[in-house]
Parts: sequence; structure tokens; C-alpha cells
Amino acid sequence: MELLKRKILNEAVVVDDRVIKVDSFLNHQMDIELFNEIGKEFKKRFAKKEITKLLTVEASGIGIAVISAQYFHVPVIFAKKHDAVNLDRETFQSEVYSFTKSKSYNIRVAKNYLSPKDKVLIIDDFLANGNAALGMIKIVRDAGAEVAGLGIVIEKRFQNGRDKIIMEGIQLESLAIIESLKNGDIIFQDSATN
Amino acid sequence: MELLKRKILNEAVVVDDRVIKVDSFLNHQMDIELFNEIGKEFKKRFAKKEITKLLTVEASGIGIAVISAQYFHVPVIFAKKHDAVNLDRETFQSEVYSFTKSKSYNIRVAKNYLSPKDKVLIIDDFLANGNAALGMIKIVRDAGAEVAGLGIVIEKRFQNGRDKIIMEGIQLESLAIIESLKNGDIIFQDSATN
Repeated sequence: MELLKRKILNEAVVVDDRVIKVDSFLNHQMDIELFNEIGKEFKKRFAKKEITKLLTVEASGIGIAVISAQYFHVPVIFAKKHDAVNLDRETFQSEVYSFTKSKSYNIRVAKNYLSPKDKVLIIDDFLANGNAALGMIKIVRDAGAEVAGLGIVIEKRFQNGRDKIIMEGIQLESLAIIESLKNGDIIFQDSATN
Repeated sequence: MELLKRKILNEAVVVDDRVIKVDSFLNHQMDIELFNEIGKEFKKRFAKKEITKLLTVEASGIGIAVISAQYFHVPVIFAKKHDAVNLDRETFQSEVYSFTKSKSYNIRVAKNYLSPKDKVLIIDDFLANGNAALGMIKIVRDAGAEVAGLGIVIEKRFQNGRDKIIMEGIQLESLAIIESLKNGDIIFQDSATN
């Protein structure tokens, strides 16, 4: 997605070989016009799939999922990461290990909102090691529902998330795929294979 | 806002005299068509104000703010509550005491994204004691920016948030104002005074 790649090249800050900061438009300040283009692109890439719900995880996935949902005309659920006082006791849950934070956390979805009839498109801002995505996949499958696909804004191809998702037999669509951040340079995967 | 009140009457669960659960459409599963009506209503109520940014706080304010931003054509910032590895060191911050969780937490916005030129509409899902809203007001003012208003989806009028906001001289617009949850009954403020 050229618009997104341009935005990354113009505004992202490469922190080190593995970390890129996109605070100015994606996950702190949010560029809603860009989000709409992202939503349209997800709709195009999953046009053939029947989808009944979008699932994401708090916090930075929420904005993208909510704008994208306008193109799918379905509700969004966000998995809760933190102690949610009001959350139902009956939840589907999954443990996710975060390399960035070097700790595990639970993500949870109330059982009421996923059923075996659901075909769920999972949306997130980043794919790196794939752990958050795998956690959401587990939740959808524990509910007896179907994972219709995984839509990612920025994939860090040099980590191994993609391989894990493909092994699960899931259609993965990443709108910008970064091959390398070495020496402060952002190298995208050749768009021919993108 | 009648549509919202109907939704609350039909789907909300009254947990006790002070707590209402709106997980099915507002802050776990999210009804995007309703969010669009909420966004339009905020735009109508703040039509006379010049607004350059929307500010909310993670996680449940994000969906509403992002959809609303489509009617204001401005970016959204969400204040971060949790340890954000990638957040700039230079932040505006504010301590917020949560009665629900009986603890304090910091909310933070990177200094890059608020300037004295900004006129900021603050958006949140709930107004109860007003502490989260006051925290965001402090951040906007610390940046030298102007608080253009506070847009709330559900106000619990029996708590004292409204009084604190009005004392700050801020236009407060709540789309559903609940006067009482006693005996499991949801009583809205008379719409004549709403």
C-alpha cells in the first residue's frame, strides 16, 4: 500500500534494528484519513471472505479496527489486556508473551461475543513475533468460530510472525512489509512479492 | 440522544447502584453504526467550536473518538495509561485516581502532538467522578492548548464529575445522562433539561 509506505518513510523513527516508532500517525496520534484508506484496503484484500466480526486487542489496534469495520459492516470486539473490573467472569482467554516488554499477559474476550457461527477477521497494527495474533487466533478457535483472516498494518518480516500464521493456514495480509531496519534504513519487501 | 438511550435500556446491565455494564455495544464489543450516530451528534453539539484535535484515553475512548474524528476532519490522540516502551520521554502527564480500581495511574501524551495552537475536544465513553477528564484537561492546558469542550457518551449524574468540569469553564456535552441506577432501574435525566 503505497500511501502507507510513503507515510512510514516520511514520519517513522527507526529506534534500533528491530523497533520502529510510528507514533505520529498510527498508535498515539492517529491519522483518520489514512485509517480509512487502510480500512478500504483490508476490505479489498478480504473481499471474497464472509466476515461477521472484527477482533483486535487494546489499545493500538482499536482505532484501525473500528474504521475498517465501516467497510465490512460488522461489529468490532477488542480483547482486553488489563484488569477489567467490569468484564464478565466467563471469558475466552489466552496468554501472550511480549518480547518488547519481556513479560506475559492475558488477553480476554467475554464469551457472549463470540459464537461458533462467527467468521472473524483479526486486525492489528503490527506483526512481529506473532504472539498477540496467535493469542487472538486461539480465542476465536476456543469459541468454535472461524478465523477468516489476519489483517496487519505493518509487518516486521525479519521476525518470525508470518511463518507461524501461515502454519495455521490463515490468510495473512500485511499492508506494509518491512524486511530490514538495519543502519536506520527502512527497507520494504519488494512490492512484486508483496 | 434517543437511539443511545434506547440501546442502554435494551442492552445495559445494571451491576449495582453505581455501575452499569455496556459491554455489548460500547466498550468491549462496539456497534460502529451507533458510534457514527454518536460522532454526528458530537459534531452537532460542538458545531460552533473551532477544533484542531480530538483527545481521548485508552482503551474504551479510542473507538468513539476515531469515528467522531471523521466528522471533525482532525487527528485523534489517545493518552497512554500503561507502560509504553516506545513512548517519547518528553511527555505531558497527569495522575488520575480511579475509584473503580481504587488506585492511581498516570496518563501521558508525547509533547510533539500538542501545541499552544491546538483547540482540543476531549472525548470519553463515561463521565463519573471526572478524574480521567480532569487529567486530560490538565494535559491540554500544560501544553498551552485550549480545551474546546468535553464530549461524553454516558454521564453518571449521581457522581460529581459534571460539577468539576463546569467549574473549569468547559462546555460539557453528554449524550445520555443517568440520574440513578437504584434498584436496578436506569433513570435518565428528564430530556427537557438534557
